[in-house]
Amino acid sequence: MATPKTIDLNCDLGESFGQYTIGRDEEMLPLISSVNIACGFHAGDANVMRHTVQQAQSHSLAIGAHPGFQDLQGFGRRDMKLAIEDIYSLVVYQIGALQAFCQVEGAQLSHVKPHGALYNMAAKDMGIADAIARAVHDVDPAILLFGRSRSALIDAGQRQRLHTVEEAFIDRTYQKDGSLTPRQHTNAVHLTVEGAVAQALDLIQNQTVTTVDGAIIHVPCQTLCLHGDHQQSVELAKALREAMAQQGLSVASTKRRIG
Amino acid sequence: MATPKTIDLNCDLGESFGQYTIGRDEEMLPLISSVNIACGFHAGDANVMRHTVQQAQSHSLAIGAHPGFQDLQGFGRRDMKLAIEDIYSLVVYQIGALQAFCQVEGAQLSHVKPHGALYNMAAKDMGIADAIARAVHDVDPAILLFGRSRSALIDAGQRQRLHTVEEAFIDRTYQKDGSLTPRQHTNAVHLTVEGAVAQALDLIQNQTVTTVDGAIIHVPCQTLCLHGDHQQSVELAKALREAMAQQGLSVASTKRRIG
Amino acid sequence: MATPKTIDLNCDLGESFGQYTIGRDEEMLPLISSVNIACGFHAGDANVMRHTVQQAQSHSLAIGAHPGFQDLQGFGRRDMKLAIEDIYSLVVYQIGALQAFCQVEGAQLSHVKPHGALYNMAAKDMGIADAIARAVHDVDPAILLFGRSRSALIDAGQRQRLHTVEEAFIDRTYQKDGSLTPRQHTNAVHLTVEGAVAQALDLIQNQTVTTVDGAIIHVPCQTLCLHGDHQQSVELAKALREAMAQQGLSVASTKRRIG
Amino acid sequence: MATPKTIDLNCDLGESFGQYTIGRDEEMLPLISSVNIACGFHAGDANVMRHTVQQAQSHSLAIGAHPGFQDLQGFGRRDMKLAIEDIYSLVVYQIGALQAFCQVEGAQLSHVKPHGALYNMAAKDMGIADAIARAVHDVDPAILLFGRSRSALIDAGQRQRLHTVEEAFIDRTYQKDGSLTPRQHTNAVHLTVEGAVAQALDLIQNQTVTTVDGAIIHVPCQTLCLHGDHQQSVELAKALREAMAQQGLSVASTKRRIG
Repeated sequence: MATPKTIDLNCDLGESFGQYTIGRDEEMLPLISSVNIACGFHAGDANVMRHTVQQAQSHSLAIGAHPGFQDLQGFGRRDMKLAIEDIYSLVVYQIGALQAFCQVEGAQLSHVKPHGALYNMAAKDMGIADAIARAVHDVDPAILLFGRSRSALIDAGQRQRLHTVEEAFIDRTYQKDGSLTPRQHTNAVHLTVEGAVAQALDLIQNQTVTTVDGAIIHVPCQTLCLHGDHQQSVELAKALREAMAQQGLSVASTKRRIG
Repeated sequence: MATPKTIDLNCDLGESFGQYTIGRDEEMLPLISSVNIACGFHAGDANVMRHTVQQAQSHSLAIGAHPGFQDLQGFGRRDMKLAIEDIYSLVVYQIGALQAFCQVEGAQLSHVKPHGALYNMAAKDMGIADAIARAVHDVDPAILLFGRSRSALIDAGQRQRLHTVEEAFIDRTYQKDGSLTPRQHTNAVHLTVEGAVAQALDLIQNQTVTTVDGAIIHVPCQTLCLHGDHQQSVELAKALREAMAQQGLSVASTKRRIG
Repeated sequence: MATPKTIDLNCDLGESFGQYTIGRDEEMLPLISSVNIACGFHAGDANVMRHTVQQAQSHSLAIGAHPGFQDLQGFGRRDMKLAIEDIYSLVVYQIGALQAFCQVEGAQLSHVKPHGALYNMAAKDMGIADAIARAVHDVDPAILLFGRSRSALIDAGQRQRLHTVEEAFIDRTYQKDGSLTPRQHTNAVHLTVEGAVAQALDLIQNQTVTTVDGAIIHVPCQTLCLHGDHQQSVELAKALREAMAQQGLSVASTKRRIG
Repeated sequence: MATPKTIDLNCDLGESFGQYTIGRDEEMLPLISSVNIACGFHAGDANVMRHTVQQAQSHSLAIGAHPGFQDLQGFGRRDMKLAIEDIYSLVVYQIGALQAFCQVEGAQLSHVKPHGALYNMAAKDMGIADAIARAVHDVDPAILLFGRSRSALIDAGQRQRLHTVEEAFIDRTYQKDGSLTPRQHTNAVHLTVEGAVAQALDLIQNQTVTTVDGAIIHVPCQTLCLHGDHQQSVELAKALREAMAQQGLSVASTKRRIG
């Protein structure tokens, strides 16, 4: 008989900035196993980073750096065409900043997941993917690299012999080729909690997704991304946890390699 | 007979930003033993930080983080009234960013010296001084803390049981109470290379300075600050090195405590 | 028989930034006569500025620029020690930016009110106050200048022959010398809507305030500041409007001088 | 007999920032007829803007706003994928900021020329071009719009019934299709002053350019761009002025439409 399956649930948090509050951090923290913390370029500031590391510690979460483009107005979601050297340096810089808050709080940096436009560009552009993977490797080869399932970033991480963690999405729909349905399309997002939970269970139990065209495709994943800034975020996370418990599925972060 | 005396010579470098070049880094690097590298808040960017760590490595210099206020337009020289928590977090953040570039380049972060207005405020304000000393301690208690000779920052470092390094200035004149003559005064700066070199030798050999009033005061110091951005900077540094050699005085950084 | 009294009610709005939303702009707009719009340095961005000008237009409000220090993390509330020239230029710059959005929307810039730390520093520091008043004057002498009642900024505006508008606060308590009770004090703020409304009515009808010590002082004012970012903001504004209506007091902005 | 030909010579200046100095502004100002002033997003700060307007006034130059992406590290030369609304607002904002410095100095804003990546993207992307042209039009339809000869930006300006000014480059080589040879190519730039001057004279007298392939193409232009930040900039500008004088060609800015 098969052992019960386990998966990591991650969420982007620590995105508040100065007087500006965003995200339902307090409510999401008990529901996840890994947290990706903004590093002050696209969101987050030094105080918020420290506070979020403290919160993650108190919930025993795996802590990740969430580096992004230096574009606070665009929240790191606008493509920027940087030199490869720029990408490498901005990832090193942001990992370092978060690492210092981990040191200060007696925590350990477990993983790195690029944010927003950087994440999407790294999924397709091998040069960008390589720059990120090299940056992570050079700072500390024991750090895990999170990337979209079957993306260029995962390939780049493997070339650097990093421990890679493939990510899938539960509230976004997929197309036949394995890509996410673009947000402009009306069916880009699962509108019901039930639809998202069903996709999540399918991903965890079978590593498959039913696409918008009705095809069943293979989507290998060791972590699922939960959003933390929507109205429905907390509701969906709770429903997922309940459904997983009923199916005997457990939640745990991927263990960081021995540093 | 006394052994020849040794002192550290430090300089603030890595202050260029994007397309903007400042400082005579290439020329100063061979003349000093410690370098304080800007961390992207008041000057420097991620590429410049990486490049400057590489340069420091190739000259076997002790590498320091040079955190400052987030005020690029003011070059970190304008007082900002921050909460104590803000000061602590911005120092942790900037140390971490530079530390990551040290990791990437196989170097080790040796010291921290606050920059500009933060340095000056920390010399007098015990709350700010404590926040900086705690930040350095919490990131890594083996890191040395540089501060103005006999300043609140040195006191704060000692309370944190950090290894502190007292700094004196060779081209600025002193007042009877041990403070620097304010820059608005006409006699704030030694106008001749000879005057600055004479003050430097006096500091190294006797730990004393002759003030603008003609008094001789005690200024304990283990490092001297050379500026890197003036027309005369390189000329002065070379003259100092020559005069030191003639007097049998040597240059060496203070060794980082065993981490 | 005395004519019914009229006063301006102003509120700082347009403080959102990128993905970050702050303030209850939609609810406050119908309750005020003048709006002070953040100009992208301490809060607000170009899109938000445009949108807020549109909103102000649709409510026929007097539109003001609300320039502040370039300190988004601190929301412009942290003192910065700038050169007088820096102050002058940053005020000109920010007025111009908002003025362009007024041009684009067919609106007219009516007034300028400095924000946060700049406002407080200009209330006491004559050099800063003069720089701001000169900047307003030099851009357009028909623009009104808002400042704290009986402050250095009002004096400076009058020296520039600007039309000045004195401001008082309804939810903050006053001390005997006419200054606001510092926020650290437990009695700095009126805790009840009733207390704030009573102070407002006293200001409008008598130009007086009862201080925390029980003294009655003269506080000349032509505008009252309503806050737009607190839980109670809308409730207080509505209660004030109702009380004013009952007393036959009306709300109207001070007319911009003929340009 | 034909009348002597006249052309505008423009240069991007005012790109210094805080302590950072860039460009040979002092030397270029006497050699040109129009200046494009950075507006604080990709370069320049409020003090520099004011100073550059003063300098332009004293040389009787036509003054233009030079808006760019908010990317100081990249000097506005890195493509950013912004929403059309973002483009519109950032152009309005930056025009307004410079306009205020013109008001303060008794000058008039004559033209707008987008900078760097924004300029290049607007040359090809009709959506971006339209957003810029609408922004200029909405602020003041009398402002001239500078764009690359035969670009989408010129077309967009004409649709807005703006007075457009086509620009050509003298030190960059052209390809058969009228585009500039990409900078990665070894023959992207004229290496000799003579080559650049010859191209300039050809542009002024014949509105033609000999491409890298030896073809002669039509490049309509009313202004030529001189760079102000290279070693050779001043030398080239002086050689051009001398050659133009010998040929009886004169330099003058295009007159702003009656506002």
